[in-house]
Amino acid sequence: MRLFDFNRAPNPRRARMFIAEKGISIEKVTVDLYAMEQLRPEFLAVNPAGTVPVLETDEGVYLTETVAIASYLESLHPEPPLMGTTGIDKAQVLMWNNIVEQQGMAAIAEVLRNWSPGFANRAFPGTVDYAQMPELIERGRQRMTQFFDLIENRLKDRRFLAADSYTLADISLLAITEFASWVRVNPLRGRPALAAWHEAASARPSAQA
Amino acid sequence: MRLFDFNRAPNPRRARMFIAEKGISIEKVTVDLYAMEQLRPEFLAVNPAGTVPVLETDEGVYLTETVAIASYLESLHPEPPLMGTTGIDKAQVLMWNNIVEQQGMAAIAEVLRNWSPGFANRAFPGTVDYAQMPELIERGRQRMTQFFDLIENRLKDRRFLAADSYTLADISLLAITEFASWVRVNPLRGRPALAAWHEAASARPSAQA
Repeated sequence: MRLFDFNRAPNPRRARMFIAEKGISIEKVTVDLYAMEQLRPEFLAVNPAGTVPVLETDEGVYLTETVAIASYLESLHPEPPLMGTTGIDKAQVLMWNNIVEQQGMAAIAEVLRNWSPGFANRAFPGTVDYAQMPELIERGRQRMTQFFDLIENRLKDRRFLAADSYTLADISLLAITEFASWVRVNPLRGRPALAAWHEAASARPSAQA
Repeated sequence: MRLFDFNRAPNPRRARMFIAEKGISIEKVTVDLYAMEQLRPEFLAVNPAGTVPVLETDEGVYLTETVAIASYLESLHPEPPLMGTTGIDKAQVLMWNNIVEQQGMAAIAEVLRNWSPGFANRAFPGTVDYAQMPELIERGRQRMTQFFDLIENRLKDRRFLAADSYTLADISLLAITEFASWVRVNPLRGRPALAAWHEAASARPSAQA
């Protein structure tokens, strides 16, 4: 089993933090996104979408979405459970992980990819070039505010985002809360519940992964 | 248990098709999106994101993402399995469902919401108005082509999208393949594998849901 990884990127970090919480170790293969290695034919054969992380199983299957990698590792290594144990908890982990990906990560990516010179023609990952649209930067920032306000409200009376213990949903939230700094936003400011949650989450050893 | 639903929209249809494949029945509450009922305070108390479907459990928990609704119903009604049975199959169902949502559904929504007069200021669902940007229409259409080409390649030598039987990933793909007609795209044209898959999927009784 191997994890195609890049140290600086937020989605591979979610996979690495999940692996760290499980207390397991998996061989890593670096795909240098700064050198555009994700668009080389040998990596596109692994993942035609040109994204990391990818988990290659011992049977040679490539899992290209963090939630899928997490689900597979949870099946192999059930302890500690990071995707819920009851039916309702499992559902809420998937729900909040989806919200973090589609409302949070998508908003930050919209700002970063349309703003940073390093992402010229990279408004989306993958083999097709999409031009930057500067008018999306402000829209993305509005969506970020909306997302982190939703999270603040959710965390007001809870220790964890989805269930009664630390799960994939918290891991995803930690990764993107820190990813926000890439577009010079500190989502903790003015959001005390998120700040308290972040203090606890970032103190976990897995946060170093 | 109740499903907040709207007959014409593609995401509630995914939930309804999942329920139909399970052979169960769940009380439905219509949220009329054409009348903007999703933005009324009583519905925003159910789902602050203002989207359907939402499943209200008997314990009063609101599940607001289709994948979460599916996961919960799978835990209550395991047969027939629609989210995989082995660890690798479960992972691949989540993976392909995510790809359909984030690469497929997002692309069609980008076209529709920036193009249709009915979506003025509704570039995203929810309580915040986002102006339409006509320059996103063509970008969305390119993303749609890229997505359906990926799916065509995946289906070339497979009967089902994610596993060896019909799953949530197929249900999601069926919903958005037909949703494409809202922006006057027929994704089956020139894609024989997708067309063969669609013929079989749309012949299932659940496709009427």
